[in-house]
Amino acid sequence: MDEQGRGKRPGGRSARVRAAVHQAVTDLVGERGYGNFTVGEVAARAGVADTSVYRRWGTLEALLGDVLLTRLNAQAPMPDTGSLAGDLRAYAAVVAREVTGPDGLALVRLTVALSGAGRQGLDARDTLLADRTRQLQAMLDRARERGEHPPDVLEVLDHLLAPIYMRVLFGAVPLTPAYLDGLVGRLLA
Amino acid sequence: MDEQGRGKRPGGRSARVRAAVHQAVTDLVGERGYGNFTVGEVAARAGVADTSVYRRWGTLEALLGDVLLTRLNAQAPMPDTGSLAGDLRAYAAVVAREVTGPDGLALVRLTVALSGAGRQGLDARDTLLADRTRQLQAMLDRARERGEHPPDVLEVLDHLLAPIYMRVLFGAVPLTPAYLDGLVGRLLA
Repeated sequence: MDEQGRGKRPGGRSARVRAAVHQAVTDLVGERGYGNFTVGEVAARAGVADTSVYRRWGTLEALLGDVLLTRLNAQAPMPDTGSLAGDLRAYAAVVAREVTGPDGLALVRLTVALSGAGRQGLDARDTLLADRTRQLQAMLDRARERGEHPPDVLEVLDHLLAPIYMRVLFGAVPLTPAYLDGLVGRLLA
Repeated sequence: MDEQGRGKRPGGRSARVRAAVHQAVTDLVGERGYGNFTVGEVAARAGVADTSVYRRWGTLEALLGDVLLTRLNAQAPMPDTGSLAGDLRAYAAVVAREVTGPDGLALVRLTVALSGAGRQGLDARDTLLADRTRQLQAMLDRARERGEHPPDVLEVLDHLLAPIYMRVLFGAVPLTPAYLDGLVGRLLA
């Protein structure tokens, strides 16, 4: 969905449609929650034809995944501090800020919604997570190239991301810096 | 909501109402998902008056929490095997079976739904989780009384429950016995 990647002029009609559709999705999620609006309603609010949405994203589920991934990549980019411990601490802090922020838990909410939305939902979920996993893997690969001994991606998911998400979901906050450092220390032990 | 605890005759009208309302909620969740039905619809399907539901449960959110807690307690009771490692392994197996079963992730789905349902939703979530946490704490207390050194409840949440839930949510299954044993081993290390 990258404009340059498709060889189109940034700022052109295609970019305007994308921005309007993303904004419409963000607004509708805020007003109604996931699963409570259609492609037709997104298109109407964005001022574009339904077919423009279908042609570009294929399904509502794929569109939802694209919107969230774009936001995550902008707000919670993968860190590159020069050390594994530094990267993991920075990553934990970014995730903690993201999930406790104004639309915190958006990733968990969307993942739950997509998990219950049939094959297209599961495909959209897997695309979304594969993209973020690839970025995390690149961070761990950089550590290995520096001669460090990183955990694997699933260990980071299990013992860093999962506890942070679950504590927010279960209301067991705040996520203090000491708590986050403890998770990283345990992961690297 | 325990009938005996309220000094009422089990099997009486009160128990029949409760069973009918619970069944109506289970059916509506299956058909429409959380958040997409009202107390009035639950009451109509159960064949009882709206006021019977409000008088007994107070809010839709509290009712949803009661239904799920009843099901969890029946299907995923806390184990008592005589050893901490045995209890944690049995608990991990029960949770893994629960979340990968036919209405897997019900706890996560309901928790997500309640987290977005204002103060009453958060109260219902906290009641639900407090009850399960109390049962888990009792299991850990028994280990301490036997002279073992159990982790605290939040560590079990962070490093046993959270990874299991997150892997199912993110589609990173299967949860093999070796994987679950690894989580327990890591927790007890």
